[in-house]
Amino acid sequence: MTDSGLNFSGKAFLPDPIRWNNREVLILDQTLLPDKEKFLSSKDYRDVCEWIRSLRIRGAPAIGIAAACAAALAAFEFKSQDKIDRRLDSALNEIQETRPTAVNLRNVLARLRKLSLAGNVGEIFLEESEKILNEEIEACKKIGQLGLELVPGKATILTHCHTGGLATGGYGTALGVIRAAHEAGKDVFVLADETRPLLQGARLTAYELQKLGIKFKLIVDSASGIAMKKFKVDLVVVGADRIATNGDTANKVGTYNLSVLCKENKIPFYVAAPSSTFDLNMKSGQDIPIEERSADEVTGFHGVRSAPENISVYSPAFDVTPAENITAFVTEKGIIGRPIEKNIANVIKQF
Amino acid sequence: MTDSGLNFSGKAFLPDPIRWNNREVLILDQTLLPDKEKFLSSKDYRDVCEWIRSLRIRGAPAIGIAAACAAALAAFEFKSQDKIDRRLDSALNEIQETRPTAVNLRNVLARLRKLSLAGNVGEIFLEESEKILNEEIEACKKIGQLGLELVPGKATILTHCHTGGLATGGYGTALGVIRAAHEAGKDVFVLADETRPLLQGARLTAYELQKLGIKFKLIVDSASGIAMKKFKVDLVVVGADRIATNGDTANKVGTYNLSVLCKENKIPFYVAAPSSTFDLNMKSGQDIPIEERSADEVTGFHGVRSAPENISVYSPAFDVTPAENITAFVTEKGIIGRPIEKNIANVIKQF
Repeated sequence: MTDSGLNFSGKAFLPDPIRWNNREVLILDQTLLPDKEKFLSSKDYRDVCEWIRSLRIRGAPAIGIAAACAAALAAFEFKSQDKIDRRLDSALNEIQETRPTAVNLRNVLARLRKLSLAGNVGEIFLEESEKILNEEIEACKKIGQLGLELVPGKATILTHCHTGGLATGGYGTALGVIRAAHEAGKDVFVLADETRPLLQGARLTAYELQKLGIKFKLIVDSASGIAMKKFKVDLVVVGADRIATNGDTANKVGTYNLSVLCKENKIPFYVAAPSSTFDLNMKSGQDIPIEERSADEVTGFHGVRSAPENISVYSPAFDVTPAENITAFVTEKGIIGRPIEKNIANVIKQF
Repeated sequence: MTDSGLNFSGKAFLPDPIRWNNREVLILDQTLLPDKEKFLSSKDYRDVCEWIRSLRIRGAPAIGIAAACAAALAAFEFKSQDKIDRRLDSALNEIQETRPTAVNLRNVLARLRKLSLAGNVGEIFLEESEKILNEEIEACKKIGQLGLELVPGKATILTHCHTGGLATGGYGTALGVIRAAHEAGKDVFVLADETRPLLQGARLTAYELQKLGIKFKLIVDSASGIAMKKFKVDLVVVGADRIATNGDTANKVGTYNLSVLCKENKIPFYVAAPSSTFDLNMKSGQDIPIEERSADEVTGFHGVRSAPENISVYSPAFDVTPAENITAFVTEKGIIGRPIEKNIANVIKQF
């Protein structure tokens, strides 16, 4: 087991989102939170694929780590030696297809494909997956430390979706900034968007903030506008699923709306993400594929239907925030401000 | 029973939200839709107060009608003659306190208090309540007819919350404009915000649009931004709960967010409301009281809890859209464009 960097909050440990356990992959099933802390384990990469598709593990950095673990499981299963054989290649493609928007998944698989593979490929991938996990945790801690300077001593911060320890290797991106500010003794108050349809804010952000002892209020996504005014929000910080070279950013649906509200209300809008979330092959946000989810996630909740039967639903999981709405990016390599495109090119280098 | 003006859509009748039936008030319980069409009836004004508080009947114009009906029930119970006696006065105050934001409730009670009351006050209030109901239905139809000119021949329209027949006496305000455009043969496609926390969009707007045979897609509230771009939204039209003399408008929480998105994307933003929704005693939106609802409505749905226990929630039922974000108001007295404050003063006269 790897050191997750998660520390005791005074109340309870935050569980790790994903770890190796005797050549099995172990995850916390995030779809059951906050009700149940149930762990799933498997030696079959197909299970890991299913976990990613069904959002049992989610968050761009955590998905990247899960993809590396799945790749190692596949290589063990196929007893791959010295190279990516036909079956392993096909498994890697299958892993890559689990979700389309988060680029970490693609970046991780590209990284594995570039490794020197003399010997047992499973062992090599497993070792690399642990390296990626540790890098992600370190990146989050660095993001937290760098993000600190953006947070006033007494700060009201609004965030969207879930970007905490469970969405990453541990610690968190946007929530990592909030956590680092809290741990540095700043007086932090968080407004957490519930984040429909899957309520990652209500289920996961609320769960982590409560465990960490950080003051917060949960709001429906639509209350973000009035809440910005009523609570005099100092800054908004969110995560990212893919950032194009010009700075356009795909993140959980509703992020674009928040960025426009920030522009209107002159509130700084920050995106906190590790360098693994940048897609240096993509020029702008127009090219980012946006996953559409099933209608059932909107028309009901936990098996209770709210909308009429047989209706049409549009359920994009993400939207794209144009770079011009983003004040700065907080990455482990540094804070990237304007001119964003030029600064991204200077700061972000990928394998 | 009053003619509701609801017509056969080719599939099913839209039920009436509220009617008199042998001196009993009969409502459709909107909290059970679209699952069950259950009617409630009572001769006790206290039941009507509970129906308003619990949103069994809701929508600013419908609340106004319900208040008039409740007032008549109270006057019958107290056998009030010739004047508003002490007990009736106290009942009218109780009715007025059921919900704070929608001004229709207040306007209706002020209207009843100004009536000449020679004879049986219950009969006088009952007659006035039917007059108000008919006026509201006529106002909606007029709003629909006037709003028509704002809708292109082929139109994609985004709306929030529920403003249809059930929210009014019948026909609807914002949904009345959409309905009138559809009935006039325009090719209308609607994007309906689900409207958290109580999902009036998913439950009621979807139900009415489906019954009326109008094409639509349901979206989560946060998807409004990306949907505006993807579907090239031509206009947004919403209802109102209270409009100040300067045009600032309180409406379901999230309306302000939509108005800012429209400004950013240069999309016309219309508010459709009868003159009974204007508050000529209120100078600006700053003074409009904003109802806060119970945390339970956010932390769970239909008894299924999603958020952790013992967390703090901020749940405003409404927000205020500044007049400057509103392209025009569609009222039964005419379309009110810029300069909004001056035109409101010219067009809106209340009893």
